[in-house]
Amino acid sequence: MSVFRFSLLSQSGQARHGIASTAHGAFSTPAFMPVGTQGTVKGVLPEQLQALGAEIILSNTYHLYLRPGTEVIERLGGLHRFMHWDGPILTDSGGFQVFSLAKLRKMTEEGVRFQSHIDGSTHLLSPEKSIQVQASLGSDILMPLDECPPGTASWQEVSRSLDLTVRWLERCIRTPRQDHQALFGIIQGGMFEDLRLQSLEKTAAFDLPGYALGGFSVGEEKATMRQVMQAIAPHLPADRPRYLMGVGIPEDILFGINLGIDLFDCVFPTRAGRNGVLFNWNGRLHIRRSQYRFDERPVDENCTCYTCRNFSLAYLRHLDKAREINASVLCTIHNLHFYQDVMKASRNAIQEGTWEQFYLRWMTHWATPREELQSCR
Amino acid sequence: MSVFRFSLLSQSGQARHGIASTAHGAFSTPAFMPVGTQGTVKGVLPEQLQALGAEIILSNTYHLYLRPGTEVIERLGGLHRFMHWDGPILTDSGGFQVFSLAKLRKMTEEGVRFQSHIDGSTHLLSPEKSIQVQASLGSDILMPLDECPPGTASWQEVSRSLDLTVRWLERCIRTPRQDHQALFGIIQGGMFEDLRLQSLEKTAAFDLPGYALGGFSVGEEKATMRQVMQAIAPHLPADRPRYLMGVGIPEDILFGINLGIDLFDCVFPTRAGRNGVLFNWNGRLHIRRSQYRFDERPVDENCTCYTCRNFSLAYLRHLDKAREINASVLCTIHNLHFYQDVMKASRNAIQEGTWEQFYLRWMTHWATPREELQSCR
Repeated sequence: MSVFRFSLLSQSGQARHGIASTAHGAFSTPAFMPVGTQGTVKGVLPEQLQALGAEIILSNTYHLYLRPGTEVIERLGGLHRFMHWDGPILTDSGGFQVFSLAKLRKMTEEGVRFQSHIDGSTHLLSPEKSIQVQASLGSDILMPLDECPPGTASWQEVSRSLDLTVRWLERCIRTPRQDHQALFGIIQGGMFEDLRLQSLEKTAAFDLPGYALGGFSVGEEKATMRQVMQAIAPHLPADRPRYLMGVGIPEDILFGINLGIDLFDCVFPTRAGRNGVLFNWNGRLHIRRSQYRFDERPVDENCTCYTCRNFSLAYLRHLDKAREINASVLCTIHNLHFYQDVMKASRNAIQEGTWEQFYLRWMTHWATPREELQSCR
Repeated sequence: MSVFRFSLLSQSGQARHGIASTAHGAFSTPAFMPVGTQGTVKGVLPEQLQALGAEIILSNTYHLYLRPGTEVIERLGGLHRFMHWDGPILTDSGGFQVFSLAKLRKMTEEGVRFQSHIDGSTHLLSPEKSIQVQASLGSDILMPLDECPPGTASWQEVSRSLDLTVRWLERCIRTPRQDHQALFGIIQGGMFEDLRLQSLEKTAAFDLPGYALGGFSVGEEKATMRQVMQAIAPHLPADRPRYLMGVGIPEDILFGINLGIDLFDCVFPTRAGRNGVLFNWNGRLHIRRSQYRFDERPVDENCTCYTCRNFSLAYLRHLDKAREINASVLCTIHNLHFYQDVMKASRNAIQEGTWEQFYLRWMTHWATPREELQSCR
């Protein structure tokens, strides 16, 4: 059986602080997982990830299955060894990428037939195949293949879809995986509260070690999304980790923590960093702006990250404008460190029983007009 | 006066081992300088450079003058602080880049008028301007503005050119620079031995703290180049460091060391790394080749670099094919480490008095058909 364990350590309001342990070590929750799509977090080496506080990362089954291919990673000793990351890894099912990146998709009960976005080759992603690939990768937390209906789907379509997702989950559970691997369930149901509850009920019946909320990172109207999240979150099994997939910007993460979510992932801090967008506790700044030309301050004067300890805004702006690789490296390091700082501060507030003040303070502070909830898987 | 000092510690054949000290620390010679064109060594952070053994780096005056501009670096406290590199820095004069990168050049006695390759703006690079910019940068070793005649130039043209270079050198020497900065001289003269000797005589008359050989990295026929180098090297002042500019591939560096050269720089290890070409003691390998798909060995089994200690050829191949930033990072780290290894092994052989065996061993080993001497500034 899986060695995966989850213990709640403290709670403040609905916000929870806990610890999850895997065969590759433990991580504290709430946790943010940097995304290593192709078996590497873009621009950041494993030791740098550890130094900035990341305890678990996510990698994408779809990408690794297509390139370098399951056989390569398996023969090289699994994903941890291949990418030189000894900590916990969560892999997704590949489904989301098939629906968002691949071409010529054909859905059947069996699975999704699709064409690779890299070379056009045809593949079938079935529930069994997804688990087989993740078993080869050797990740610590596995996600089952689910259907991700478009945001425009009707109640009937979403209802049909979540039943398919439940049948697929059953097939995922029956597919052999490695002993140490924990398989989570994914709750779908779109923006329909009744369907979300139905999906939760059917999924939780499998008594899985963790549950994820899917479909909240696909660019829906934020108010609706938050309403549905609020409706479903209290019903998630309290003793299992709760994962809000593909979310998000810092205020969406705080919103999730406030509802009792434990686990997040998003490409936003890495992607934004590569585009010269930097986070700090006051919001975001665009490093390309001319106002930073002579600015000798770091991105954030209170930040202890490698970038802030050693480099000025003026230098980062120069590297970004000169399109230097190290612009991406340094901005990504800062952004991921900032995200980990937000998680640490949140955990501290929960431990100290001051979550509510913490939450209100930062949600108010950040409540300047901002982009919609980012789609960032 | 300059705090620059150079001491010879041992000699084996013509090959020399010494130590140079600057206001920003010392470096052992023979030394190879990684190139940080735009105030950063592409893909490698300062601590990584130190860890792989680099003691001195080169940065390009032309690039930094155009972007971010002298004023920015000056106001940010100089190049060392700007780029977070506390060790010695050598800056070139900018002349070579004006001749190779800029457009609409017009040479006069005053200097070179040129158009920026970035935004088309017009600038005058004069001997005074070059030194003023380098003074603002605060580098430890400065190079004077020289004219770089094309390889096709006649004896008469090269002769005229080297006289201009000498007049420019005089103006460079008279231009104020920071107290700690050492100004080297550059010996030109193309592929004409008599002109090389003439240039040396006229340049050495200024009693400078170091001398460079220019014009040996511009794609001339290798045999001719080596012949001219052999003719000129023995006449270089023995108690001053000798710098072979823009050279080169490992065998050209060994060839230079064998003639008593102390200092080298080249973009080849960094540029090759970004293109998936990796060095080891057996030669080079192209990481994209399918033969490495399942290869779990490191680039070099005896290499102690970060990349070789932690990653397989198969992983590097995957990152390269997936165009991941970390492919450039890891391949550059290895290549620069290899170059530093070559320098360390050379210094050891000189110290132990076994240079000749070392030199013959590796020149023979590497004497498979290879590219011409690389132009790599």
